[in-house]
Amino acid sequence: MILPCHKNLCLKIVPYLITRLTKVANALTISDLPVRFTMSVKSRLPEFLEKCERERDRVVDFWLQNSHDTEHGGFYVCLDRDGKVYDDTKYCWLQGRQVWMYCRLYNEVEKYDRQDVLQAAIAGGEFLMKHVRDPATMKCSFAVTRDGRTVKVQRQPFSEVFYFLGLSELYRATGEAKYREEALKMMDQLVHWMTVDDSGLGRPKWPGAPATDNMAVPMMLMCMIDQLEMMDPALTNKYAGLAERCVEQLLLHIQRDGTVILEQVSPDGQELPGCLGRLQNPGHAIECSWFLLQYAVRHNRPDLKKTAINNFLLQPFESGWDDKHGGLFYFLDVDGYSPTQLEWNMKLWWPHNEALIAFLVAYKETKDEQMLEKFAKVFDYSFSHFVDPDHGEWYGYLSQQGEVTQRFKGGPFKGCFHVPRCLHMCTQILRELVTT
Amino acid sequence: MILPCHKNLCLKIVPYLITRLTKVANALTISDLPVRFTMSVKSRLPEFLEKCERERDRVVDFWLQNSHDTEHGGFYVCLDRDGKVYDDTKYCWLQGRQVWMYCRLYNEVEKYDRQDVLQAAIAGGEFLMKHVRDPATMKCSFAVTRDGRTVKVQRQPFSEVFYFLGLSELYRATGEAKYREEALKMMDQLVHWMTVDDSGLGRPKWPGAPATDNMAVPMMLMCMIDQLEMMDPALTNKYAGLAERCVEQLLLHIQRDGTVILEQVSPDGQELPGCLGRLQNPGHAIECSWFLLQYAVRHNRPDLKKTAINNFLLQPFESGWDDKHGGLFYFLDVDGYSPTQLEWNMKLWWPHNEALIAFLVAYKETKDEQMLEKFAKVFDYSFSHFVDPDHGEWYGYLSQQGEVTQRFKGGPFKGCFHVPRCLHMCTQILRELVTT
Repeated sequence: MILPCHKNLCLKIVPYLITRLTKVANALTISDLPVRFTMSVKSRLPEFLEKCERERDRVVDFWLQNSHDTEHGGFYVCLDRDGKVYDDTKYCWLQGRQVWMYCRLYNEVEKYDRQDVLQAAIAGGEFLMKHVRDPATMKCSFAVTRDGRTVKVQRQPFSEVFYFLGLSELYRATGEAKYREEALKMMDQLVHWMTVDDSGLGRPKWPGAPATDNMAVPMMLMCMIDQLEMMDPALTNKYAGLAERCVEQLLLHIQRDGTVILEQVSPDGQELPGCLGRLQNPGHAIECSWFLLQYAVRHNRPDLKKTAINNFLLQPFESGWDDKHGGLFYFLDVDGYSPTQLEWNMKLWWPHNEALIAFLVAYKETKDEQMLEKFAKVFDYSFSHFVDPDHGEWYGYLSQQGEVTQRFKGGPFKGCFHVPRCLHMCTQILRELVTT
Repeated sequence: MILPCHKNLCLKIVPYLITRLTKVANALTISDLPVRFTMSVKSRLPEFLEKCERERDRVVDFWLQNSHDTEHGGFYVCLDRDGKVYDDTKYCWLQGRQVWMYCRLYNEVEKYDRQDVLQAAIAGGEFLMKHVRDPATMKCSFAVTRDGRTVKVQRQPFSEVFYFLGLSELYRATGEAKYREEALKMMDQLVHWMTVDDSGLGRPKWPGAPATDNMAVPMMLMCMIDQLEMMDPALTNKYAGLAERCVEQLLLHIQRDGTVILEQVSPDGQELPGCLGRLQNPGHAIECSWFLLQYAVRHNRPDLKKTAINNFLLQPFESGWDDKHGGLFYFLDVDGYSPTQLEWNMKLWWPHNEALIAFLVAYKETKDEQMLEKFAKVFDYSFSHFVDPDHGEWYGYLSQQGEVTQRFKGGPFKGCFHVPRCLHMCTQILRELVTT
């Protein structure tokens, strides 16, 4: 009986000692030692795992405790620092995303294989179907009142994307055919709008507005196809051609001899004039990188894997990272002009979530320690700036200097999605890395 | 001959000595003297005048040098710190505003009674009539290409307001009947949209969107009526009833027992639920104050004068001023929640322009030195933060801490308007104050 006990003790103590030793070693400066003593960042894997998992549970708990509208179904999203509802408008991107997140956790994490999680997701899905989607046009509201009356409709089809994602994952959780049918119907509609004819979205065509390829569109489509394949692997072939076209479209955004990713280009891959053409959104490029990387791995495409890492991950990360204050800028102008977006220099939570996922996927797929070092850099910034020690869910908005500018945890564009998705995926990958 | 020379010298030296003495006196702290020695802020009037006039000319010169499109007419508005065009899209609020500003200067300032100023204004007015306004619907574009093709149309009628202002002042400058007719036609259309039926604007009515009274609408209407009366005093009676209704509508925005101005209320003057209802925009309330104050003076309404100063100027100024870093916040939530607008804590140029005008008008009309002291506070902040010593026109966007976040001088929402209008009006009022 002594040996197993020792083994357990060792399993706990060794990672702890490594972490402590690394911290001591890293605290020493060049003046303390002739050569700086550094330990491999790999030694931090157990620490990363433990913190991601603990933080995932604190975050999910925040939403479970504070966001459920038990009367009408669906979720409150405007939650103050401590979870108090400061506005009961239901923003619909976030309704779909929270249904998806709850179901993904229910489907993949033993701890969340619980009735309260599933029931809240179902109530969210029913709210979406009853109040958010217009059955005649399939257009979804952007925002509705607490009881489901439309407040605003966007002409971009993003509410619809998250409607699809939520119902698709809800089908995976429940096996209920109606959610599958609804998801497939919305998928067909979205593919029609995004690739055949977008006149149903009501967007006017002005003679001076250039035709553009917005990186968000092929990225979203890839994400949807990925979801669909999880829901029903038999559909893989149906969408294989479209997925490949999305990849081609994404690659058009590599510009200026392969040195930058631009957010908008012409449909044939030319740089557009003015601010619109020069816009960079590092977080978006980094998000793309892990979609592309996973696709490249699945389809055994080493060239695409290299492009995903070099062009969509490393380059945007290097140019988007603020060397002075840390953190990723929100927008940049590739020629160094000031972006016209007032929030360009703020540090938003979600690009950091995307970077954590991307570097960990890249490390898993390449075992290149550089990837893990950059993961550690983003991890340290994120856990020291976005995490609220007193209440769950991360802050979303920091100044360039890293001060919290918006104390709320949920708002019109921030809900139960990026933080728990990131922490869930990182926990999964880290567990695999630690145990192999 | 000796006496007049002495007199001239005295006229120059006395204000200089007063300014220097005041600075020395103010630099002394409580520990230096048993009672703090302060000089009346009135002694700074000559300094304010000299700096406003000099700055006005530097600013106007920046636009004269850099913004004219001599090929197509109209103005480049996206100008970098040094005047370089970084995007040639023509934002139409700013086209109308620049026509108005050039004509106002041409009409009121001897120095700008020049052919180059008038010709640029005419070229701008012709561009507006030819490219910006749809003759069938009277809707104006929000943005057009350099050669006038529509890029974007807003469903709020603000481009149309500035179209009216520009052409009305252009008629005053040229006496050309076509500009007057065009201005009157747009005025009628705007009054129809704003007070009778707004269906022509194409704004959808959603069942969950509350009916709101946005303070911008009656404020804009008052500004337009004021412009119309300048253009043709015979029209005063025609719009007297409407002006009075605008005043009544503005007064509905005084909420919570007279302690706050809220940006949006219900049409019958009730506070709206959620973030929308709690929103404060101190710069907007302060802008309103000087429209209301001027109206109250013209119509001999002492109660309204008091309301304009106490409710629309002093209260929003006190609650909107950042005691830690100086400057006026852009947005606030009346209950202290974080506003969802990411830029809420930034210091924008235009609220400071409005505050300079408002406090100076208030001082002129009341001779209450408190108003001049607050003018001085805004003046000192503005001249030390927004002014660029190397190139004309002010910076527009600062962080909460007062650092320049956007280096450009002109952008989609910042053109040749707030800064020169403020400096022109302040120069006029200060000259009156200094010489009487």
